[in-house]
Amino acid sequence: MPLDPVKLTADLIRCPSVTPGEGGALVLLAEVLSRAGFACTRVDRNGIANLFARWGAKGAKTFGFNGHTDVVPVGDAAAWTHDPFGGEIHDGVLWGRGATDMKSGVAAFVAAAVDLVTEAPPEGAVILAITGDEEGAGRDGTRALLDWMAATGEAMSVCLVGEPTCPEVMGEMMKIGRRGSMTFYIEATGVQGHAAYPHRAKNPLHALIDLLGQMTGAPLDTGTAHFDPSTLQVTTIDCGNPANNVIPAKARATVNIRFNDAHSAASLIAWGEGLAAEVSAATGVSFAMNPEVSGESFLTPPGAFVALVARAVEAETGVKPVLSTSGGTSDARFVKDHCPVLEFGLVGRTMHQVDERIEVAQIETLKRVYARALREYFA
Amino acid sequence: MPLDPVKLTADLIRCPSVTPGEGGALVLLAEVLSRAGFACTRVDRNGIANLFARWGAKGAKTFGFNGHTDVVPVGDAAAWTHDPFGGEIHDGVLWGRGATDMKSGVAAFVAAAVDLVTEAPPEGAVILAITGDEEGAGRDGTRALLDWMAATGEAMSVCLVGEPTCPEVMGEMMKIGRRGSMTFYIEATGVQGHAAYPHRAKNPLHALIDLLGQMTGAPLDTGTAHFDPSTLQVTTIDCGNPANNVIPAKARATVNIRFNDAHSAASLIAWGEGLAAEVSAATGVSFAMNPEVSGESFLTPPGAFVALVARAVEAETGVKPVLSTSGGTSDARFVKDHCPVLEFGLVGRTMHQVDERIEVAQIETLKRVYARALREYFA
Ligand SMILES: [Zn+2]
Ligand SMILES: [Zn+2]
Repeated sequence: MPLDPVKLTADLIRCPSVTPGEGGALVLLAEVLSRAGFACTRVDRNGIANLFARWGAKGAKTFGFNGHTDVVPVGDAAAWTHDPFGGEIHDGVLWGRGATDMKSGVAAFVAAAVDLVTEAPPEGAVILAITGDEEGAGRDGTRALLDWMAATGEAMSVCLVGEPTCPEVMGEMMKIGRRGSMTFYIEATGVQGHAAYPHRAKNPLHALIDLLGQMTGAPLDTGTAHFDPSTLQVTTIDCGNPANNVIPAKARATVNIRFNDAHSAASLIAWGEGLAAEVSAATGVSFAMNPEVSGESFLTPPGAFVALVARAVEAETGVKPVLSTSGGTSDARFVKDHCPVLEFGLVGRTMHQVDERIEVAQIETLKRVYARALREYFA
Repeated sequence: MPLDPVKLTADLIRCPSVTPGEGGALVLLAEVLSRAGFACTRVDRNGIANLFARWGAKGAKTFGFNGHTDVVPVGDAAAWTHDPFGGEIHDGVLWGRGATDMKSGVAAFVAAAVDLVTEAPPEGAVILAITGDEEGAGRDGTRALLDWMAATGEAMSVCLVGEPTCPEVMGEMMKIGRRGSMTFYIEATGVQGHAAYPHRAKNPLHALIDLLGQMTGAPLDTGTAHFDPSTLQVTTIDCGNPANNVIPAKARATVNIRFNDAHSAASLIAWGEGLAAEVSAATGVSFAMNPEVSGESFLTPPGAFVALVARAVEAETGVKPVLSTSGGTSDARFVKDHCPVLEFGLVGRTMHQVDERIEVAQIETLKRVYARALREYFA
């Protein structure tokens, strides 16, 4: 009897795995997968729970899936129409935190994998790398799984991440890469003084305005073959000086950059620090740029794996998916250092919102897409 | 016997008149002045104490003095070498809060005026308009005195403000005007969003950087006949957004402008609001500029009164004073609407600092300058 991905999603929703809590979700999946013949290993690190499951021989041709069972907090609990941890179905819609992001995606690939190995065992292996920390810091989630896999000789030949990828219509978009993300936490230090005597002071805000004006003044690029243009956003500027007659000594700003393959984190750091050095030389205000890199951009170029998944999507949804690199970061940014990685999942419209919910039909369709991709891969 | 301005300063320092407290300072002055034949009137308003004193006939040719007895707080009391309210003299130096700003100035003009009317009563009148609130809000200080004077037919023909005006050397500078001061309290309102999808948001910080870049990008002017260039300083920018993946909805900035007679508050408000309207039209971010005017610029052009005071300064100090319009605001900005006004006082180097102090010789010199100006005025 095939595994019901809707029931499994509902069961997972009932596990209150608010990031980084395990909430029973990975324990449940380990039971389901063990019963189907998967070798399950908990790869916990620094208190974060992760589940590694393999069916088939280590070292064989391996189709991998990656996903997460942790969810963001419910927010305003009173505003929910149904219990966010109830897993209730009303009129063909499953309600609850994680219904789209991404207990449904995990349930769909678990069900597809279990059916495959039960009903038509392939020549090869299937690995499921499931983390309990994608919505939080993410330091000990998929990274821990990949570190452990590398250390123990476990490897995926390809990997499909089950995050929601479709903006409005099931099947319309898959992700073949992601922009990189980095942040400057800028600290500007000048010389305090009286607003009436600016020649005796060095206003860090004026230098910051100059620097940020240069950073925001022109687009970083106009896009590349597979990527939208890079974007740069100043997300805060803070000084906290209450006195309108005082020139402050210090000011801070945060600049977040989402960058395509025309750049690297290193090239952007050099660019930002170069501009800061110029402004510093002109103003006497010093800058600490404090860059933090969340991830480089990456691309799985169109090829056999991309074509295989795209065919499966179109066959099951009737929609030809756009090959996109848009959107925020996901754990695919870690997986890409190990094997070709794609992302395909359902419509994410209500993710992270109050009343997160999904049509059960989408979960069933998603399982069929994953099942078809698995079958074709091993055919 | 001449009135000792050093003893009077020390007595005033012992009155703890931290703004806007009266501290006994105006009561003491009213006693001294009444004894010398001045008609004294307390012109208190909204709990702020002010003292009006006139010798001679109402409506006569009148030399006026203006000053304040309130002082800024002591700051770090433990850091003072001597009691800030002790009025102690050590090695010819008088220590205490108000020693330079400006209990000494008040004592010097009170002593000069008392000696004049006692020893050589002039044909004319002397008015002393002394406030207990110059360091604070200033709404009910010298303004209250001037309002009351206008309402009761009291008028000064000329006025000398006794604030410290000399940067380093006694006698080197007098003030014949002041730049104006105004402040924009800017609020920028855009549309919040995710840093990865800036096309769905309107970043108020980018619009603010654009606006402030234009405001700070070029000097307002290059100075005028009697004024230094106007200056514009951004004194704070604040947003308070902790999330580097969120474009904020709102941001604030404060811009303080010290302007010369090439501008008026109205012309600067129109300029700022015009720039804001342009940036708003280009970005969709709306601005509330919230201008607040502290005072227009003013000038008492070189002429008979300026020449008279300058001669008195040079005769008593041996230094020819520069005619300056530099520095921050003072109550002269209110007096100038009533009569020609100048400022001359001692070296203000330690004003508002811990260990505020002044050489007693400077106080004596200052009294002689005021006495000479009075004599020559009525000669
Ligand atoms: Zn997710
Ligand atoms: Zn003062």
